[in-house]
Amino acid sequence: MNVNGKHYRTIWLKQDDDSVVQIIDQRHLPHEFVIEDLETIEDVAAAIKDMHVRGAGLIGATAGYGMYIASLRAPKDDLTAFSAFMEESGKILKATRPTAVNLAWAVDRQHDAMAAGEMIKEKVSIAKKTAIDIANEDAESCRMIGEHGLSLIEKISQEKGDEPVNILTHCNAGWLAFVDHGSATAPIYAAHDKEINVHVWVDETRPRNQGARITAWELGQHGVPHTVIPDNVGGHLMQHGMVDIMITGTDRTTFTGDVGNKIGTYLKALAAKDNGVPFYVALPSSSFDWKIRDGVKEIPIEQRDATEVKYIKGLYNGKVIPVLLTPIDSPAANFAFDVTPSRLVTGLITERGICPANEKGVLSLFPEKKV
Amino acid sequence: MNVNGKHYRTIWLKQDDDSVVQIIDQRHLPHEFVIEDLETIEDVAAAIKDMHVRGAGLIGATAGYGMYIASLRAPKDDLTAFSAFMEESGKILKATRPTAVNLAWAVDRQHDAMAAGEMIKEKVSIAKKTAIDIANEDAESCRMIGEHGLSLIEKISQEKGDEPVNILTHCNAGWLAFVDHGSATAPIYAAHDKEINVHVWVDETRPRNQGARITAWELGQHGVPHTVIPDNVGGHLMQHGMVDIMITGTDRTTFTGDVGNKIGTYLKALAAKDNGVPFYVALPSSSFDWKIRDGVKEIPIEQRDATEVKYIKGLYNGKVIPVLLTPIDSPAANFAFDVTPSRLVTGLITERGICPANEKGVLSLFPEKKV
Repeated sequence: MNVNGKHYRTIWLKQDDDSVVQIIDQRHLPHEFVIEDLETIEDVAAAIKDMHVRGAGLIGATAGYGMYIASLRAPKDDLTAFSAFMEESGKILKATRPTAVNLAWAVDRQHDAMAAGEMIKEKVSIAKKTAIDIANEDAESCRMIGEHGLSLIEKISQEKGDEPVNILTHCNAGWLAFVDHGSATAPIYAAHDKEINVHVWVDETRPRNQGARITAWELGQHGVPHTVIPDNVGGHLMQHGMVDIMITGTDRTTFTGDVGNKIGTYLKALAAKDNGVPFYVALPSSSFDWKIRDGVKEIPIEQRDATEVKYIKGLYNGKVIPVLLTPIDSPAANFAFDVTPSRLVTGLITERGICPANEKGVLSLFPEKKV
Repeated sequence: MNVNGKHYRTIWLKQDDDSVVQIIDQRHLPHEFVIEDLETIEDVAAAIKDMHVRGAGLIGATAGYGMYIASLRAPKDDLTAFSAFMEESGKILKATRPTAVNLAWAVDRQHDAMAAGEMIKEKVSIAKKTAIDIANEDAESCRMIGEHGLSLIEKISQEKGDEPVNILTHCNAGWLAFVDHGSATAPIYAAHDKEINVHVWVDETRPRNQGARITAWELGQHGVPHTVIPDNVGGHLMQHGMVDIMITGTDRTTFTGDVGNKIGTYLKALAAKDNGVPFYVALPSSSFDWKIRDGVKEIPIEQRDATEVKYIKGLYNGKVIPVLLTPIDSPAANFAFDVTPSRLVTGLITERGICPANEKGVLSLFPEKKV
């Protein structure tokens, strides 16, 4: 999508030097737009581990490009040494954020693809193509989510006439979490680019404020009208007819329709249900968990460090600094995700279309997953 | 309640000099404990307007003491001049926060009481007694709320045995919002002082963080075990049996049981309902609105400045400073309250007892309000 009027993806090969990968270093958003060169496997590992890049789709794409970077830096005079270097590089990448499914998937896909090449030169060339393919496929999946989700927004817009369609979203399931378009934001960008009048309520998303920092920034850069709100506000807005549709992303959704997503999603889903506001979840099919049936009981919920609740970073006198919000001695708890039961979910927007949030609905779009 | 092991109220006459009123200047909490002397009507007006003191009960008590301070500083040689000074002082106080019901009520009560005195000296003495009465009555109301609410916590504690009773609260309806005990916190302090094992989940309460700053501080000072959580977390805790009861305060509750309270209360009430967690609202009867029936439609919701959402204050290098959280150009909305419909409220805890959140229940405790 656009930044300062120019189209960007979140990751790309450097112009005039395709041995270097470039990313947007998202740690500096929204206060600074920093592009970073990744030239070694250590650069790539640090970028994932220290969250210069984040979001399932983008982590996968970065790992894909990381394996290509590794293939360039690997010893070229001996196939065994080359393979050992690639094996080691894959391990380094996988260890950066061990819970991210797309990370291991991208590394393994590179290993498998490169195995088909006989000569080292050929393997390097396969690694480059595979990295580009992974990124392109991610962008295309999100674009298709946008096409399917667009129909929901278009319908509301037709009913409302000149009035803007008010969309509430939580956290960042935007293009910055993928390669382009995003998941929850894809239908919004598609509608905006088609000149449909949309306005987005952006949940700030405490404690890490991905909404206030990242979603607000990417919507603003692309020119989409939006308003940042504290996470407490959405229920009041829905009670008073100020939300037409809610769309979020997901970190893991069961094939039965239970949605694991950033903490607080469940509260908004309850308010949507209570006020008859449709609540949709947008996801590429890579985010489905095909094994577990009961999301509330079975999706593990990460607990993060209390300092993320007690301190917050913001801009002061041109510098980003952390400030203490609570009494220094008060304990804090930091559950990172919650699970919204399928009964509260109106539908799932995938790259193959929209379906009800239940086993029958999901399997109708993904019949190959039937056992 | 206790601060550093010593009992405090939020407002009192200075020891050895009862012509001076002392308050806790709450702007500095939780990072500093500052006691301020109020010696003139201007001091008192600034303390209310600039929120050195806040909370319905405490604002009323401060206005009561303010009228006493005014009576001390008024000209004493001429009754007309004295009365004119008192009239003017009352106006100054009422203008500080015009929407606070308890403020005008306390000023008018002082005017009425003082009218009964004939000599100036007598009027001053009445003003002093009335100020003390208002504060004592507020503390006593809250103490009674604590006694009644205690029974709810005791019952859960008996069922749980040695396990702590987990109570979730939102915002600050603590002793710092009243003269002592608080409303939502009164049953908690009563239980803790009776050595019942309680633990409080403290909602941070964005955007002004009254929970993370004030509730956490006062619970910590009184020795009550507590954990600060982002406002997003409560639903997840309730889904997993980690909340036994929810208790909040209210800014205005209709006699039909609809509860106006700090923004975000409605979302927690929905989660409580969805998970069978009892949701109680604690209030002195001065917080009832006896005129309107439909809280969601009729309670006006204050919108405050967007800067309160975009910036937050915290401690950095020993200094409290504001940091910017959002893109500088992103708009933000700041609805200060929401309304929880009575159907989501298990009961109301008042100084006269506990009743169901509906017209019949409320009028059974306050039969004199029947028309």
